[in-house]
Amino acid sequence: MRLAIVGAGDVGRSVADLAGEYGHEVVAIADSSGASVDADGIDVEGALERKAGGESVGTADPATLFETDYDVLVEATPTTLGDAEPGFTHVERALETDHHVVLANKGPVAERYEELRALEADSAGSIRFEATVGGAIPVLSTIEDCTPQAVTAARGVLNGTANFILTRMAAEGLDYEHVLAEAQDLGVAEADPTFDVDGTDAALKFVILANVLADGGFSLEDATVEGIQDIPGSALELAAEDGRTIRLIGEASRDGVRVGPRLVPENGALAVTGTRNIVQLETKHAGSLHNSGRGAGGPETATAVLSDVGRLPEL
Amino acid sequence: MRLAIVGAGDVGRSVADLAGEYGHEVVAIADSSGASVDADGIDVEGALERKAGGESVGTADPATLFETDYDVLVEATPTTLGDAEPGFTHVERALETDHHVVLANKGPVAERYEELRALEADSAGSIRFEATVGGAIPVLSTIEDCTPQAVTAARGVLNGTANFILTRMAAEGLDYEHVLAEAQDLGVAEADPTFDVDGTDAALKFVILANVLADGGFSLEDATVEGIQDIPGSALELAAEDGRTIRLIGEASRDGVRVGPRLVPENGALAVTGTRNIVQLETKHAGSLHNSGRGAGGPETATAVLSDVGRLPEL
Repeated sequence: MRLAIVGAGDVGRSVADLAGEYGHEVVAIADSSGASVDADGIDVEGALERKAGGESVGTADPATLFETDYDVLVEATPTTLGDAEPGFTHVERALETDHHVVLANKGPVAERYEELRALEADSAGSIRFEATVGGAIPVLSTIEDCTPQAVTAARGVLNGTANFILTRMAAEGLDYEHVLAEAQDLGVAEADPTFDVDGTDAALKFVILANVLADGGFSLEDATVEGIQDIPGSALELAAEDGRTIRLIGEASRDGVRVGPRLVPENGALAVTGTRNIVQLETKHAGSLHNSGRGAGGPETATAVLSDVGRLPEL
Repeated sequence: MRLAIVGAGDVGRSVADLAGEYGHEVVAIADSSGASVDADGIDVEGALERKAGGESVGTADPATLFETDYDVLVEATPTTLGDAEPGFTHVERALETDHHVVLANKGPVAERYEELRALEADSAGSIRFEATVGGAIPVLSTIEDCTPQAVTAARGVLNGTANFILTRMAAEGLDYEHVLAEAQDLGVAEADPTFDVDGTDAALKFVILANVLADGGFSLEDATVEGIQDIPGSALELAAEDGRTIRLIGEASRDGVRVGPRLVPENGALAVTGTRNIVQLETKHAGSLHNSGRGAGGPETATAVLSDVGRLPEL
């Protein structure tokens, strides 16, 4: 398939880098200031070098990305809430011109799900969004294969930054501020870590899961969300005396979405460590299925995008 | 899709039972003595009641299954080694007449993989076999989505009977013979438990994994296999003093297949309990992906068969 990648952050760049290995061709990549576009396949290495050097990926007008001949739009611009723009309009444009869309951007899928499905229904193209939930972990394709009706709930840890912080607080007896600074030094937490530590990032993912299970009906404002910023080190010590620890756990079902810190058994499945994520799917006929792995990272998330591309039908 | 199910054991019956829920129709089901065949869809409930009452699923000649109009042959007869008959011939017949095949029977996939792929290449039909490895756990579709080339190895616990026995031996300090008898009473081990306890069943699954990773080249005789029958209770006690336990672990890579009892950390991912299974996939770009869940059971394995049916292209 020919990929047009909008967004040249970690994920967009990794998709461009790995596309060839999966048998696909990159015909365009754009960031906010420029684009590299070539119907015969762009020079990926050159584009990535320019970006690494602090420039834009290319000198063309970003708008020309939509005018090129492509099969799949890869939407990898930063997640935005509410109207989910400019990502939503990118998706809309691609679907209205009968292209496929694969999203890594959570915004449109969490906040305007029914509108996306309506656009898809009127298009020859399909939308897929494995990369929006759990990075490399194939959560959505597992639900799709079971059929959503056979899955009653999804629960787990879907934010690696918060999980890393809680793991380190418990392991070292350090307080939140101290471990957050450590996480930022390591690049595990961003300079502005708000969405990770206040539960918003995890909530967006569980909203997406609820939308998949219920075929729509949820957006971020429907979720009950509590973050990890107020957890004192003493809470983790107390938990440990009881063979427990604390993790930021989310739950999604057709009834709603909740994210918040929970006590979990210290050695149980939900007590994943470091930046690892886990999703437990409760199913009607197959008991509980657990998927764990790396929930974030450029290459990790790119593998989810490229898995989705591999599951698209020929246009 | 219209399903013709050959084999009316736990898996075949569960596939018939759940097919409607997944949007498919059962046009035939056969056991060794009879068949129920109806191009407009059989009376599934009636066939299952007859079987439950000790009779055959139907009064038609089992051979008539292949003469009916169907889309997918579901091969759910008992696993046989070596020439993998009669399962292999069932698959061959379906592919030669341009039908799809979904296998729950491990024999043909472990023992005659390259021949299956050659038959598939000459057919309008495709073969899928998720149900042969890890029951409800979507191992093979995860590898398929990552692309097999991106997966370097698969490791884990793929036999629930052996895992149950080791879990109970460790938990209760009982010896092997005692726990095996308990497992048989519970229906977790068969009257003849040989393939489960000597590692053959697990080895077949890891041979299938190696065939998928390497696109053929392996059969059961290539695997190095050791079972659990000789593990004394004292070995588990000794392991526990060191924070470890023993599990029947298999490993598959392009270099080969090994199955045998291994010491694993007591609280680690590989120390799944009871009849649960786990597969860890090592990937090039996405680190380690863990999938765990119920590895056996009629409904559980049927969900894997029906997931496969859902991924088949229209004929």
